[in-house]
Amino acid sequence: MQLIEHVAEMTALARSWRSQGLTVGVVPTMGCLHDGHLSLMRLARERCDRVVVTLFVNPLQFGPNEDFAAYPRQQRLDCQLAEEQGADVVFAPDSRELYPEGFQTTVKAGELAKGLCGASRPGHFDGVVTVVTKLLLLTCADVAVFGEKDFQQLTVIRHLVADLHLPVEIVGAPIVREPDGLAMSSRNKYLQGEMRQEALCLYRAITEARRLALATPPPAAADILEVVRQIVAERGGALDYAVIVDERNLREVPAVDGHSRLILAARIGGVVRLIDNARLLPDHA
Amino acid sequence: MQLIEHVAEMTALARSWRSQGLTVGVVPTMGCLHDGHLSLMRLARERCDRVVVTLFVNPLQFGPNEDFAAYPRQQRLDCQLAEEQGADVVFAPDSRELYPEGFQTTVKAGELAKGLCGASRPGHFDGVVTVVTKLLLLTCADVAVFGEKDFQQLTVIRHLVADLHLPVEIVGAPIVREPDGLAMSSRNKYLQGEMRQEALCLYRAITEARRLALATPPPAAADILEVVRQIVAERGGALDYAVIVDERNLREVPAVDGHSRLILAARIGGVVRLIDNARLLPDHA
Repeated sequence: MQLIEHVAEMTALARSWRSQGLTVGVVPTMGCLHDGHLSLMRLARERCDRVVVTLFVNPLQFGPNEDFAAYPRQQRLDCQLAEEQGADVVFAPDSRELYPEGFQTTVKAGELAKGLCGASRPGHFDGVVTVVTKLLLLTCADVAVFGEKDFQQLTVIRHLVADLHLPVEIVGAPIVREPDGLAMSSRNKYLQGEMRQEALCLYRAITEARRLALATPPPAAADILEVVRQIVAERGGALDYAVIVDERNLREVPAVDGHSRLILAARIGGVVRLIDNARLLPDHA
Repeated sequence: MQLIEHVAEMTALARSWRSQGLTVGVVPTMGCLHDGHLSLMRLARERCDRVVVTLFVNPLQFGPNEDFAAYPRQQRLDCQLAEEQGADVVFAPDSRELYPEGFQTTVKAGELAKGLCGASRPGHFDGVVTVVTKLLLLTCADVAVFGEKDFQQLTVIRHLVADLHLPVEIVGAPIVREPDGLAMSSRNKYLQGEMRQEALCLYRAITEARRLALATPPPAAADILEVVRQIVAERGGALDYAVIVDERNLREVPAVDGHSRLILAARIGGVVRLIDNARLLPDHA
């Protein structure tokens, strides 16, 4: 496996693959890889001739009071993990490579980026769509794999690809969870002492919401969300938002159907912001 | 030659070309083709296996008080002209094709778009870089040819391609002029009666500026611009701006050198806004 740090080198390699007719699968990450990321790599490996894993903590998607500087980094271990999953290249540029002096053209997300995480993180999704556009184009990606844990991000990126005609297929992959249900996240490293237990409030709320959703007739979304709020609060989480949306357009819905997804964000221990989500009804419901 | 109106059809054809290893040259236009456009097509024809001419009057790049509705359209004649220059495809989508309901992800130009035409046309270059990104990606362009008449646009697009890593080479082509020096432009159709003569003020100013620039030592930019202003005013033009910039970054310069370009915009007859530009010193000066 090859570690590449420069855009020019990555682009030259990707173009040579393309000219040989090889397909390229890309897994964009901010590093600090966990089993969730590894599942994305396996999907890319199954689908494509060449797999590129990108490691880049993107300053454009962090707000001024967010954890850009503190965000966990472990490049050597990440390279080893990517290699074990069969990646051909780890692309780990520094900020100057992707945003050299004079860099100025950006991509701007739309309506889908305004609510949910976008409401408390202004500009976040603009940073995401800008760096994703850059990474997918410079790697000549045919397929890119993203986790459903960042469900709003996945939806925004699918729209980016359709709106700008990026020549890539976006594959969404299911959330990978710890044995007790906590969704895997690089930010779980921040969970100290009791916070690890408190963090389960998100999954507990999801589990209960899914149970309630099975009733006939389906309950009102407002009633489910009331229970969600109670569970998160009882277990010590500070809810940022909890909504039930149509997963195709992220618009809130009054009642649950087969396209309904519960999406929530909460601060654990007052500081660690975690997100989670799940479709409320089983497939084919 | 084929006329294509749908994105899906254009993309399918472009991808089939790519899979056959054929290179694609694209000439994005707003239609109403003149000899300037035809020179771009010939350049694309020389460079690439397949040539696509796009005709699209892009609503995103027009301000609310600009001439979107009035902009001249002549699709049948344009197709004939493109065919004569050896184009393989004219791609002429309507607005709904490029901006369907729900379209929301846009590209945003930076510093280079703020001065000159950007100052009096807020949002104009955001509209330009958005549609150019879409057109180049959906046609799988290897080469795209733009005229130097829209010099700021050409510079903004070169930056777009570098910043977002669009896999395309941008070729700038020299301004084509009428026998009396008027730069070719679709908006020249608006010039009625005496306005046609008045419109020569731009070229007269450029000619005089180039003559002055040959002095040793080179004159101050401010002195040249004073003469430019006089000439435009004497001949009935209302100057929007006249600047001498370093053509690599569009920043104003105090004195003329081999990278200096005079760029100007004026309203003729109070209504028709025309632009023009020229490098001040001959090549190898």
